[in-house]
Amino acid sequence: MTSNKIAIIGAGAVGGYYGARLAEAGHEVYFLVRRDYHAVTASGLKVTSPDGDFVLTNPHVAKNSEQIGPAEWVICALKSSSLQDAHKLVRPCVSPGTRILVLMNGLGLEEHFAGWFGDGRVFGGLAFTCINRGKPGYIHHLAYGTVTIGHFQDNPAELETALSLWSGSKVQILSTPSLRRARWEKLCWNIPFSGLCVAAGGITTDRILSDTGLKAAALNLMDEVIAAGNADLQFHGEKVRIDHEAMIESMFTRTSTMGAYRPSTMIDYVEGRAMEIESMFGEPLRRARELGVPVAHLSLLTALLHSLNTGR
Amino acid sequence: MTSNKIAIIGAGAVGGYYGARLAEAGHEVYFLVRRDYHAVTASGLKVTSPDGDFVLTNPHVAKNSEQIGPAEWVICALKSSSLQDAHKLVRPCVSPGTRILVLMNGLGLEEHFAGWFGDGRVFGGLAFTCINRGKPGYIHHLAYGTVTIGHFQDNPAELETALSLWSGSKVQILSTPSLRRARWEKLCWNIPFSGLCVAAGGITTDRILSDTGLKAAALNLMDEVIAAGNADLQFHGEKVRIDHEAMIESMFTRTSTMGAYRPSTMIDYVEGRAMEIESMFGEPLRRARELGVPVAHLSLLTALLHSLNTGR
Repeated sequence: MTSNKIAIIGAGAVGGYYGARLAEAGHEVYFLVRRDYHAVTASGLKVTSPDGDFVLTNPHVAKNSEQIGPAEWVICALKSSSLQDAHKLVRPCVSPGTRILVLMNGLGLEEHFAGWFGDGRVFGGLAFTCINRGKPGYIHHLAYGTVTIGHFQDNPAELETALSLWSGSKVQILSTPSLRRARWEKLCWNIPFSGLCVAAGGITTDRILSDTGLKAAALNLMDEVIAAGNADLQFHGEKVRIDHEAMIESMFTRTSTMGAYRPSTMIDYVEGRAMEIESMFGEPLRRARELGVPVAHLSLLTALLHSLNTGR
Repeated sequence: MTSNKIAIIGAGAVGGYYGARLAEAGHEVYFLVRRDYHAVTASGLKVTSPDGDFVLTNPHVAKNSEQIGPAEWVICALKSSSLQDAHKLVRPCVSPGTRILVLMNGLGLEEHFAGWFGDGRVFGGLAFTCINRGKPGYIHHLAYGTVTIGHFQDNPAELETALSLWSGSKVQILSTPSLRRARWEKLCWNIPFSGLCVAAGGITTDRILSDTGLKAAALNLMDEVIAAGNADLQFHGEKVRIDHEAMIESMFTRTSTMGAYRPSTMIDYVEGRAMEIESMFGEPLRRARELGVPVAHLSLLTALLHSLNTGR
């Protein structure tokens, strides 16, 4: 395996965990760390995980991106609510050969990176996982962990390069031939379930499945997201579509196995942090409206979530 | 003026205030009191109001309806979330000649009273007011106060009898030729504004007007309520309709004059009390669905409000 220099921009729970797994696999990983800088410098990065606990002793940590400098890969794992900071944080790590994996939630994020740094080097990563930060220097990986990766231009050779980065790691990586479809498919879960878990007052996903009204609302929202996603795929000339019936069946079945699951957006809400509303709800809503897809439920839900997010 | 024996069932803020105004006008008013029984017995019922403060010394207070017995009028001012208690609390006060004013919020309440006690004696009252309870024995009337009264069968002679009850009082009374339309018209305000003030996290009405997304949501909800109301009026063979454009104009204009208004349902929410969701949202939603009126926004809002109401 080739060792790559990798810059992790936004080494919170998700960035810290996946960066640590890449370092564990032998890559030269640099973490841009804010909150935990002193703890990680002093005692390393400690990861608990069902896939094996481990400690990264003496990781490369930096307080600013200039200290890291150009890397072969940048993994941007900022919260999408910090998108306005991404350009200046990522730029010092980008040289002509750098590739960028946007490991963030929501729609339209890769477009920004492509605009800043060029289309061909941008990838999107969709993490299906449950990871929390513990006390300084600790990351708790609780469940799941698969990352689905797509290339911004859906270039198969580039996608192979991205997959090879992870080949020696303990992370399960899936590839998608259509990043756009993958983003919409993730929204098919996030919009109804994360959205309703917040708007219904900070509840767990099982409460949605057991409440007739909320379950119907989740179904209506998913219908709208699928319709909007397929209109967006068609508009962009993509041949792939989201299979309506199969998606609904799969998302509700998967959710029923998750028990009293707390989506990260709901955790942000109940713990008083900014939620990723714009990229997860606002942008899909805007696209749906531009494409003329009726999205009454999504429209009301987004207005409520924006208000819940800014009213704090 | 003839003095009537009046039983106030549910002498909270609204029942206490309007009952006190009727007693002030010379009627023989009996209050069914729970929380404030001892305070009112000891020191009377104290009312502060922009229409004049006053104290009702030695009011007739009762701990149960049997102590009151048959009255000429029963004013039921329970919260609609206590509808299941209304029959047993009202029945001891009903004799063949008793008339019943249902001074409660929401749709379909008079139908219950008509089923229990007979159609001809039932009236509906819609209070547009802001009244809070203070410490035991105190009621604070803060603003507004008009009550619109209709007869369950829209019988003009019966309606005159109801109006005459209030003729010597300081309360402004309006009559409506169509109780059904009046109920729907009130919902045109309550559903968008009370509903969104709760679902957006406990905000005041001015926040809805100043937020593009919430204002659009309020408009969409009002559209749906007007359409459902008109379908319901048509279904019941009524000639009257809600004027769509005039209603929207009037409701938004009125709301813009109200400032940072806290709807009673929002106060219930932020203070942790049961909200009147079923009669104000659930029943209109059910009627709209039965009539085949599309109500996507109302459907999602109602599901969220039910969850917020039961999740506490």
